[in-house]
Parts: sequence; structure tokens; C-alpha cells
Amino acid sequence: MSVKIALDAMGGDHAPGEVVRGAILAAENLSDIEIILIGDEKVIKDELRKSSTKIPFEIIHTDTWIDMGEDPKQAIKEKPGASINLAARMVNDGYVDGIVSAGNTGATILAAASHIPVIDGIERTALATVYPTAKFEQTNRGFGLILDVGATLQCSPKQLVHFAFMGNFYLSEIFGFDRPRIGLLNIGEEETKGGETLKRTYQLLKKAEELNFIGNIEGKDIPKGIADVVVTEGFLGNVVLKMLEGVAEVVKETGKYAFHKRLSWKLALALLSPGIRKLRQRTDYSEYGGAPILGFKKLAIKAHGRSNAKAISNAIRVAAESSKQNICQKIEDSVGRFNLKHALEFADA
Amino acid sequence: MSVKIALDAMGGDHAPGEVVRGAILAAENLSDIEIILIGDEKVIKDELRKSSTKIPFEIIHTDTWIDMGEDPKQAIKEKPGASINLAARMVNDGYVDGIVSAGNTGATILAAASHIPVIDGIERTALATVYPTAKFEQTNRGFGLILDVGATLQCSPKQLVHFAFMGNFYLSEIFGFDRPRIGLLNIGEEETKGGETLKRTYQLLKKAEELNFIGNIEGKDIPKGIADVVVTEGFLGNVVLKMLEGVAEVVKETGKYAFHKRLSWKLALALLSPGIRKLRQRTDYSEYGGAPILGFKKLAIKAHGRSNAKAISNAIRVAAESSKQNICQKIEDSVGRFNLKHALEFADA
Repeated sequence: MSVKIALDAMGGDHAPGEVVRGAILAAENLSDIEIILIGDEKVIKDELRKSSTKIPFEIIHTDTWIDMGEDPKQAIKEKPGASINLAARMVNDGYVDGIVSAGNTGATILAAASHIPVIDGIERTALATVYPTAKFEQTNRGFGLILDVGATLQCSPKQLVHFAFMGNFYLSEIFGFDRPRIGLLNIGEEETKGGETLKRTYQLLKKAEELNFIGNIEGKDIPKGIADVVVTEGFLGNVVLKMLEGVAEVVKETGKYAFHKRLSWKLALALLSPGIRKLRQRTDYSEYGGAPILGFKKLAIKAHGRSNAKAISNAIRVAAESSKQNICQKIEDSVGRFNLKHALEFADA
Repeated sequence: MSVKIALDAMGGDHAPGEVVRGAILAAENLSDIEIILIGDEKVIKDELRKSSTKIPFEIIHTDTWIDMGEDPKQAIKEKPGASINLAARMVNDGYVDGIVSAGNTGATILAAASHIPVIDGIERTALATVYPTAKFEQTNRGFGLILDVGATLQCSPKQLVHFAFMGNFYLSEIFGFDRPRIGLLNIGEEETKGGETLKRTYQLLKKAEELNFIGNIEGKDIPKGIADVVVTEGFLGNVVLKMLEGVAEVVKETGKYAFHKRLSWKLALALLSPGIRKLRQRTDYSEYGGAPILGFKKLAIKAHGRSNAKAISNAIRVAAESSKQNICQKIEDSVGRFNLKHALEFADA
């Protein structure tokens, strides 16, 4: 049976062109998949005609969508027919198995929250992002997952533990990690570090036998890739993620500067280019298929705003794979067992 | 009149050798300064004899000190005669004008808290750290100050505003910044972003006429140097600072790896070496004189654990300069005016 993915054709800096091209790329390379394009029918058809693809796409027409700069709360409310709202509603109606959007992040989270039910036993959803790490040791796969990075700014211990479960299944089922190393972001390794929330979270994670909890990790451990899954509340995760992006930008700008500054530096960068290419490949967000919003009964993937066709195609692949692997069901089962076992502790909280 | 600085001769990875050499370096290059060395008299004298210096140092003998790995709380309590405790007590006794230690960070903060009174009007102290930033624009001096990075994990709006005042005077008086740009670390630029604490802090900072408040900054703005002073509570600041250190380590390791991997990369790095040297100089913590603990009536400087003689000497210079510039008094005056003006608002909180 094929998997159906709803794609917000109007979301993203390069929408609808690159988004539609991404859909074609995915449809031509993946089996058992149907992609529903949501957006302005005429514009989408024009984009489809530009390619030589023979694949027929179902198009759901709408003439409203949410731009990158719009206020998410207001836009989601005032534009019930916006492409991202339609996509999320199609999940709730059981028509599709997941959604992908490269559009406004807040709007994507809110649309999902408005229309897709949350997994039983889960209290809060989390936006997770894959980020590149230094690969100095064999056990490190070269990238990690950090969650939450902005869906739930403040979290209870129970919610943070749920994030650990969600990250665990995402990495193991989609990227084939064997027992992902789960780290709790804190200001020191000792279990007594941090405030009450983190101390209680640590104790709960220690008892989560299904997880490979490696303890607290510090800021320095993030780029080193000491953990595969970095668990943190949304406020901290958001600052950390944006800082990594900022550092990457600074490195890129410095490289550009060096390239133009001296002939000897130009030569040096040319000599380094195979290494730089390899590094760039590893740090290329388009490889990882976007940021999953975890905690809903079906997966919503927020692809990067700057997504090109390849990034969109990878996001579709991940959404389809998540559905095939029943990730949300696996999260529900594990979290359910955990909640039941610790029901008394949670009642105290 | 000369300034007296107490130096914890036993603190730091390379103590007492590099610490004593740092004292000699400072004493020989700075005028109007007296450095009191605190630690094992015999060992210190042995180190002094290794140099050809003619400068007489006052030595306060003690045979206990706190090692880097010790639990700060316990050690400070159980070792009242430890070198860092003696140094802090000498400030309170009015015998010295500031202290410098490259030892255990927590112990340095706690020793100061136990013995040095807090500035009138200030509720919490902050550990501040200088960090390098990208210098793509003229207004950016190539480094910024972030506080708090670990002294006060959670803060009220009032306390965060006080941190802004403290950072402001440190950068303007010691490093000659003209109206440092103050940024509040948040998850978005809009003044409605973040939790209640940050929203209230934003409103208070807007009213602080003595400060050049530029608004909220995001994680990506930290390495770019969009603000000169990054204001944040200690938990977030600690994670952020350690992550910057982690990224720096990863870059260094990657460079080492490339150097050994291929002849062409070795050549490339050789060609880049003038730039790398310049960059390393700018990112060299020993240039900035360590991390000031702000909020006490006299300045305590926590030098980096790995400090060499130059770093110690710079820390002593900064401590002496802070005393000469009356930074703590300036903070007290400004914060006093601000508190008075907003007394009613604070009464609400």
C-alpha cells in the first residue's frame, strides 16, 4: 500500500518552483508513494509542465497561503484555507499519512497543533533538528538530533522524558542508529546539576530502560557529538540551534573574505577544496530531510525555508519512511509503558 | 597611590609556576601596583628564585588550597584557610583592592560571595566572559562580553537589568568601548518574545537611559558580534559559552586532522598561517584578562584554568584597572539611580 504525503507547495523561500521540483524528484525516485500538492493549481501546473515528468500529481487548489514573514498565530486563525492548514486537515481526515512544508515554521507547528491529534500520553510536541557534529570517533555518525528547538519553550520533567523517547525512535527508525545515545543538556555532568526540573528529568531518564541515557551533557559536547539525541526545553534549544547556524555563517563569511584577500589564501582554499566539499556535504541541511515535529499522531516535517528540490525530496522521503516504520505508534507504545510505570511519580508532580 | 591585588598562587592548571611568573610579568610592566602572593611560601619562593626579578613580593603563607576537581561548596566550607578564601578575606579587610585566581571557578565565586560584600542595590552577582566575534563591520571591536555564564542560574528582570549595567561599565571603562551595545538573549527580536521574565526585562532595559540597549538578540547574533554585551541568565549563558568553546575545539581538531592527512592540505594550512595566527590571537583568552565576577564591591577576576603567565598578568592588569577606574562605584551609582526611578515597578514584582 502506498504512503500519501501532503506537500505545502506554497511554503518556502523558493516555492513553488523548487518545492514542485522536489515533489517530482521524490515521486520519480521513491516507490509506493503518492504526493498531494496543495496550493495555487495554475501555478503548480505551470511548474509541472516545465519538467518532462509523466507522473500524475493530485493537486488540491487554494488561493491563500502563509508567507514567511507573517505572524503565525494570526495567520493560522485568519486563513483557514491556507495551504498549510489544508495539509494539516488532510492528516486529521485520514486522507494523508504525513505533511511536509518549507514555509513559516511557527505556522507549520500551529497548523499541525490545530488539526492533528497529539499521541496518547504525550503532553507537548517538539520540533527536532538534525545538526552536524565532529566525527572524531567511530561511534559518532557525524550528526545528531536536538529537540525541542522551539515548539515548547518551557517543559516539565515528564515532557522532557517524552522528548527523549521521540528522538530515540526518530533516529533509530529513520537513520538506523543502534540505541541512540540520549544526553540531557545541562551545565555540568553531575546528576545534581541544574534546577529542579533537570534534576528530576535526570532521575526519570535513568529509569527509562528502553533508552540509552548517557547522562547530562554540556554545551561543549553538542558540536563534539557526545550524544546522538540532545534533550532540552525549547527556549534553550532554540538559542543553541541558532548559535550553531550563526557560527556556520561566520565561518562561511570568513572563508569568502580570505578567498578575496590574498592570492596565497585563494590557492590554499583551492588545495583544501576536497575537504571543504566533504565538510559542506556533511553540514548540508538538505541531506537530512528537514525538522520533524514530533508528538503528533502523524508526522509533520518542517523543511528548511531555503530548501531546494533535493531538500524537499529528502523531507518527503523521511515523512514517508516515518509512516512506513510506524514511528508515531512506536513512540505511543513506549511512552505509554513508561507513563504507566511511573504514574505515581507523575501524580506527585 | 598604588593598587594592591591578591593573587591566588595555588589556583590553576599550571600553578604555582605560571601564576608566579604572571605576577612577575605584571609587576615588571605595570606601575603603581603591588601583588600579594597567597599560597605555600616555600614553593612560591622557589618559583621566584627561578627568575631574575628584583621585585620584592609580599607572600601570605597557607598550606591549604582548593584543587580544580573539588566540590566548591564543600571545599570552601571545610578549608577556611585555603588560598582563595584568604584572598577574598583580604578584600573584605580592606587590605587589597581586588583578587585574581585561575583556580576552581565555583570556589572562586563562593569565596567572593562569602567574604566580599555585594554592591548596594545589586541582588545577584554575575560571572562575565569575553569571547571573540566575527569582525565584518567597523562597529564591532572583535570581541564581546556575555554575562551571566554561571553565577546566578535563574534571574529576575531586575537582576538581568543590573547585569546589563555591570557589563556596560566593564566594557566601557576597561576596554574603552563607547556606549557598548547591550543585547538581551532571546528566541526572537520582537519585544513580545520569550517568557514573562524576558518580556519584563526588555521593557525595563528600554527605560534604562544610561544604557545603549539594542533589543533582543538571537543565538546567531552571538558569534556575529551584533551586541557588545550579551545579557542572559546563568544557565543559558553557561551552555552558550561552553558550546562556543566546544566549537573552537572541534575547529582546532579538524585543522590538526587536515594537517596530518594530506601533503596538499599541509601546504594549504601553511599558506593560511598568517590568517590563522591573526585569528588565534583574537580568540586567545589570555589577551582579555579572564572573567570578572561582577556585583561585588571589589573586583574578583577568574582567570582561565589553563592560564599561562601572560594570561595571569593580563588578569592582574584588568583587576588593577577596574580598581583605578572605580568600576564598582560607577555600577553602584548607576544602578542606584535606576532602582530609585523604578522602585514602584520593582515593588510590584
